[in-house]
Amino acid sequence: MSSGEIGVGMIGHAFMGAVHSHAWRTVHRFFPVPLTPRLAVLCGRDAARTADAAARFGWADVETDWRAAVARDDVQLVDICTPGDTHAEIALAALAAGKHVLCEKPLANSVAEAEEMAAAAEAAAARGVRAMVAFNYRRVPALALARKLVADGRLGQIRHVRAVYLQDWLSDENSPMTWRLRKDKAGSGSLGDLGAHIVDAAQWVTGQDITGVSAIAETFVRSRPAEGGSAGNGQIAAGGVAMGEVAMGEVTVDDAALFLARFSGGALGSFEATRYALGRKNAMRLEVNGSRGSIAFDFESMNELSFFDGDVPGAEAGFRRILVTEADHPYVGAWWPPGHLLGYEHTFTHEVADLLDAIAGGTDPAPSFADGLRVQRVLAAVENSASAGSTWTPVGTAGGAVNGRAEMEGAAVS
Amino acid sequence: MSSGEIGVGMIGHAFMGAVHSHAWRTVHRFFPVPLTPRLAVLCGRDAARTADAAARFGWADVETDWRAAVARDDVQLVDICTPGDTHAEIALAALAAGKHVLCEKPLANSVAEAEEMAAAAEAAAARGVRAMVAFNYRRVPALALARKLVADGRLGQIRHVRAVYLQDWLSDENSPMTWRLRKDKAGSGSLGDLGAHIVDAAQWVTGQDITGVSAIAETFVRSRPAEGGSAGNGQIAAGGVAMGEVAMGEVTVDDAALFLARFSGGALGSFEATRYALGRKNAMRLEVNGSRGSIAFDFESMNELSFFDGDVPGAEAGFRRILVTEADHPYVGAWWPPGHLLGYEHTFTHEVADLLDAIAGGTDPAPSFADGLRVQRVLAAVENSASAGSTWTPVGTAGGAVNGRAEMEGAAVS
Amino acid sequence: MSSGEIGVGMIGHAFMGAVHSHAWRTVHRFFPVPLTPRLAVLCGRDAARTADAAARFGWADVETDWRAAVARDDVQLVDICTPGDTHAEIALAALAAGKHVLCEKPLANSVAEAEEMAAAAEAAAARGVRAMVAFNYRRVPALALARKLVADGRLGQIRHVRAVYLQDWLSDENSPMTWRLRKDKAGSGSLGDLGAHIVDAAQWVTGQDITGVSAIAETFVRSRPAEGGSAGNGQIAAGGVAMGEVAMGEVTVDDAALFLARFSGGALGSFEATRYALGRKNAMRLEVNGSRGSIAFDFESMNELSFFDGDVPGAEAGFRRILVTEADHPYVGAWWPPGHLLGYEHTFTHEVADLLDAIAGGTDPAPSFADGLRVQRVLAAVENSASAGSTWTPVGTAGGAVNGRAEMEGAAVS
Amino acid sequence: MSSGEIGVGMIGHAFMGAVHSHAWRTVHRFFPVPLTPRLAVLCGRDAARTADAAARFGWADVETDWRAAVARDDVQLVDICTPGDTHAEIALAALAAGKHVLCEKPLANSVAEAEEMAAAAEAAAARGVRAMVAFNYRRVPALALARKLVADGRLGQIRHVRAVYLQDWLSDENSPMTWRLRKDKAGSGSLGDLGAHIVDAAQWVTGQDITGVSAIAETFVRSRPAEGGSAGNGQIAAGGVAMGEVAMGEVTVDDAALFLARFSGGALGSFEATRYALGRKNAMRLEVNGSRGSIAFDFESMNELSFFDGDVPGAEAGFRRILVTEADHPYVGAWWPPGHLLGYEHTFTHEVADLLDAIAGGTDPAPSFADGLRVQRVLAAVENSASAGSTWTPVGTAGGAVNGRAEMEGAAVS
Repeated sequence: MSSGEIGVGMIGHAFMGAVHSHAWRTVHRFFPVPLTPRLAVLCGRDAARTADAAARFGWADVETDWRAAVARDDVQLVDICTPGDTHAEIALAALAAGKHVLCEKPLANSVAEAEEMAAAAEAAAARGVRAMVAFNYRRVPALALARKLVADGRLGQIRHVRAVYLQDWLSDENSPMTWRLRKDKAGSGSLGDLGAHIVDAAQWVTGQDITGVSAIAETFVRSRPAEGGSAGNGQIAAGGVAMGEVAMGEVTVDDAALFLARFSGGALGSFEATRYALGRKNAMRLEVNGSRGSIAFDFESMNELSFFDGDVPGAEAGFRRILVTEADHPYVGAWWPPGHLLGYEHTFTHEVADLLDAIAGGTDPAPSFADGLRVQRVLAAVENSASAGSTWTPVGTAGGAVNGRAEMEGAAVS
Repeated sequence: MSSGEIGVGMIGHAFMGAVHSHAWRTVHRFFPVPLTPRLAVLCGRDAARTADAAARFGWADVETDWRAAVARDDVQLVDICTPGDTHAEIALAALAAGKHVLCEKPLANSVAEAEEMAAAAEAAAARGVRAMVAFNYRRVPALALARKLVADGRLGQIRHVRAVYLQDWLSDENSPMTWRLRKDKAGSGSLGDLGAHIVDAAQWVTGQDITGVSAIAETFVRSRPAEGGSAGNGQIAAGGVAMGEVAMGEVTVDDAALFLARFSGGALGSFEATRYALGRKNAMRLEVNGSRGSIAFDFESMNELSFFDGDVPGAEAGFRRILVTEADHPYVGAWWPPGHLLGYEHTFTHEVADLLDAIAGGTDPAPSFADGLRVQRVLAAVENSASAGSTWTPVGTAGGAVNGRAEMEGAAVS
Repeated sequence: MSSGEIGVGMIGHAFMGAVHSHAWRTVHRFFPVPLTPRLAVLCGRDAARTADAAARFGWADVETDWRAAVARDDVQLVDICTPGDTHAEIALAALAAGKHVLCEKPLANSVAEAEEMAAAAEAAAARGVRAMVAFNYRRVPALALARKLVADGRLGQIRHVRAVYLQDWLSDENSPMTWRLRKDKAGSGSLGDLGAHIVDAAQWVTGQDITGVSAIAETFVRSRPAEGGSAGNGQIAAGGVAMGEVAMGEVTVDDAALFLARFSGGALGSFEATRYALGRKNAMRLEVNGSRGSIAFDFESMNELSFFDGDVPGAEAGFRRILVTEADHPYVGAWWPPGHLLGYEHTFTHEVADLLDAIAGGTDPAPSFADGLRVQRVLAAVENSASAGSTWTPVGTAGGAVNGRAEMEGAAVS
Repeated sequence: MSSGEIGVGMIGHAFMGAVHSHAWRTVHRFFPVPLTPRLAVLCGRDAARTADAAARFGWADVETDWRAAVARDDVQLVDICTPGDTHAEIALAALAAGKHVLCEKPLANSVAEAEEMAAAAEAAAARGVRAMVAFNYRRVPALALARKLVADGRLGQIRHVRAVYLQDWLSDENSPMTWRLRKDKAGSGSLGDLGAHIVDAAQWVTGQDITGVSAIAETFVRSRPAEGGSAGNGQIAAGGVAMGEVAMGEVTVDDAALFLARFSGGALGSFEATRYALGRKNAMRLEVNGSRGSIAFDFESMNELSFFDGDVPGAEAGFRRILVTEADHPYVGAWWPPGHLLGYEHTFTHEVADLLDAIAGGTDPAPSFADGLRVQRVLAAVENSASAGSTWTPVGTAGGAVNGRAEMEGAAVS
């Protein structure tokens, strides 16, 4: 590459591929990043589709074998936008080849995979090779502001966390199968897809780890019409089971997952992930109550943060709707004047800006693969509790022999 | 009494006493009730305070012994506004004396008491003596409209219930003790005080019973300054324990209780009751998502119901803010033109209007003591689960030998 | 009257009569007023209807001649709840008879009448007889808080006032005539009915007078079905004009009135009153922007005040939703705990509490008849400007030769 | 240019330049436009600054003379992002040279200029050369949906339009001068900057023209610190007047402009543009009430449209918060799944997509220069009315003898 450039190879070109491409094309237009991304190669299984996507998204070249893409000399960074079942293999290969990695969430489909990935990332870091997991909601300016308020002590001691991620695209029982409903591809359902985001966001904003959970999960609709040839978001066709005249596919993941949690700092948490909350399109909501202040956020109004400042005298106190579009708000100075809203894709542009800064600066980007593993351990504890009568289930820790299953067995009943 | 009047004797004269008095004074001014309440006697332990309250609230006479109040010939209805530890004794005596009973929630401090009360109410009903438990939120027009929408099938199959009741008056660690923080008086903390409301509302709006729960509970602040002589809302002084220079009292109830639930019709529920949600003053919120529609409610905007009608074409669909102030909304026709809001106390006026209609009409008022018992069983299951490692705990049923404790032991871990 | 009582005679018993009755019955139950109202006599034209209303509303006696009601020895205060065409005559008679007066708004149907009333009130005050005009929105706690913030300098120099009062009950072209649509009864249409409220509120909250206006007005629907025998809110049957088969009545007032204004302190104002804003039920909204802060209010959320505090650092600033239900908010301490909302009728209870305090304390209540006159002068200027090509029209002042008519004549017609 | 490309030359590189550049870079990545923009040349007065901007924004070459930029063979479309005093000259030259034109709003600084531009655009269209004025708010999906609802008759007969555009960046009296505060550069103040947007949006959404106005305007702060060397948004340095020690500049435009309006279809309108509404960052709000429905919009929540559907039965009716992020909403299908919000810059991407479609399709893009002229005539009428005692001032029409100047002369000055 020419000086100051970094060649990117992206694996996958569906929804996440489109938004990552936009970020790679755009980041240096707004942020003073030390490295300018070069969209070197896009990789997908189907040559024609991949070529079409590459033309639309602005990629210079195409591969159909991810190993070839990873191996290319013009690729210094591998961006993994595939379903969760392939994350570990690709990420491990890329790190081994000395390529920086940006990996979509959830990090992996199992704790074991995530542990291997986190270990590889730690080893790679010692060689200057960086890895980041793409919890893009950390780059919503309003949530970054929320974290700052907590870190500055403005909320005092945190007592309550309320986090839900509500969508409704499965409310219709006749909406078809996708890879997201197949355990072998997606690992889990709404838990990994949506729950992973709110687990990471809650831990990140509060600065506390979830230490244990009690959970329930449900699959409301157990079979759905098989996917047709038309794509939707599914980049990889999944086989349906023929059932009478209409081909049906079996849903093998959770439709909804709910859990209670305790945090390392003493807070209580309530979490819910579902795609059956009719009318809620992308309601990733987070509420935190502390002894000195509270915050509330809803991604459907992503440019706003509600903040209750307990230091304000009672007669004047109230939740303050902060329009997080001021130049001194996180990331916002790079964009438009106050009140000119940002959108979903900006979070990814912010994400790659931070990643490029970390790579050039020789620091570890966040969220790290270790952060991704931490989320994975929470998800595993949730699954274990849900399948064990909601019994309280501690979240495993890095150093121990404890994994998902062991945690369950180790759960002491008071 | 003169024809068309009903003499009321009210026990207790603190917060609930004030608002019940207003309802008794006001109901016949707005509703065409068949019986006009006569505020016959107010009963409290302290003669001077009770006399003062009676004058302010408009009661004709005063008693300091609730048995005397219940026994009076000019009392046909006993209204119980005391802490939960006295509900059972007073209600049983009143029903035995042939007096109709309105009893504040939660119905009792234990399932055993509630069972006895429900049995007594059922027996009394056979004699034309009526009993009602005061879950006043059923009389919020917006919630009554929500229930109607569900009953009319407008939400389709219910999949999710999200209910929280958030207050913040204990956020300050130095706010003093009250009887509400003492288990012997209040039975439980936020669970019975706030949780009881959302359990009843959720079951009533959805028309489904909670069948099992998994719970956690916490007491954030375990000792507080003892109550002074000045009252606040606490109508009965509680003894504080001297600790060094400042007399401190021990908090023996939960500060917060959270639980997951399953409903008889297949819905999943999430519940939270706390007095530590800084900035939330009376956020009794209920969200229900069904296959055909959704509703959302927050008591802090009690005149509004948000309704998502899934039958509306997607491009026009959205949560509709219904200002529940139209003449054809439940209870509203008795009041003002559209857009002229109602307040908290109106729910009690509606409540006694319905009670008077039931008494005169010879029907059973709702919520019945059996409904109160059903809530009590859920609260007991919550306490049991919370003290048993969050293990899934079925809610006991009327016919069985199962009580709170037994339910716990009977909880099968899958 | 017995010591500490005050006998009230109320003229009119429609919508305003119902809500005033509630206030008189209720005020001493919640406020430590020095005088307890006795509901001595209710006066209406139709004996049977008046007797029925008196029974429902709790009045001891009935009159059908307002002069008789005013003259009664057991009446010390006359409460005028009739249409505007009768205000002057009744109020003048009552003041002359030494009776305190509470008069519904607008004060009168012309500036000349209002001037005579204000002069009479001033003269009466010298004899200890008090007069108040019923701009009840001054008693909304949120607006009282807004005024306090302005008075405390928290908004700095006021630059903008935005006030609208939006209802929609005339949107339907087939809704029938009422006295409110007849100029001879109501004086004007939405201007006097709704506009009077926002003019008073804007002047009161800002502490500035409106000095001039430019206006337009419109009558969208010029004839409507005549009123039937059934009442609605109209307490006095109005004659309809027969038009073919369906009897139609002519609308002789404005359906909507809009005006721009300048205030004595340099602020610019925008006002709108209409009953054709489909979907807005009672949206009396006020926004004020100053150099140091801003407020926003909407009666459809009457328990809330939005306050932007410009002293807060930019990154944390935002409109604060103050739930105006704290004990140290205006009027609220008399009622319920935080978050337990108040409704429309509470504003009237607050109003009579203040009036009773003023009568007993020997002070002039506010808003005075002079305040009512000031509003009337603004309304006259609006009408004059609207009928004179929107020409800028100064608002007449008490001492000057300029009155409503003179202003009109002095306006250059384009 | 190669087949399917169109070379763009952009004049100006401040705020508007940045956002237009983003649109040119991005449009073909999301929309199937028939022409792919090539960012051929960026033009600015200062060579170094322009080169820096060109590098950041992605332009291939640089000019410092706009005539040279317009003349280049590799430029087929001229994008004018300069202050209003230069629009006419550049646009006329470009059209004369056969180049398509996209011109920022307001179209010009006077009606006369705008008339000349509209005539030139009409003539150019006959030669296949297209011109568009950049009222980007027409491309907010929520407003495009609003227009569709009106056009489909869902609002019935329009009776009220309420439009404000509120910002607050001049609230601080010490914020410095910019070209936007100088009449010679900007033409007018908040009127042209903000008022132009709401005039165009109101006319476009309702499908009605404004026929007359009554207005007031004010300059709250008449002198401000002169601009320093640092830029802000001002792309052209303006000279300050030395005043004692601190150099001050004179503000020669309106700080706020308010006007009442009548529309061709009978609706009444209220408009306000200000930069002194403390706390409002970009509150471009539009409310429309019709006989059958109403809409409300606020750009600070730009992804939402509130719609009241009067056909819904009263007990279920309410303003519906439509999250305008569905695939079948205008423009949205090109972007993300439901609930994944769009931001400010997307409106420009939509704008150039429509322009490219029009150019390739041989149709006239909207808003045309004639539309821009229509807005200009309204602005002129507002200025004339404001300087003539708010006298009602008709809006000039293209064919008539009345133009901005004539209107002014015809207005009686009080």
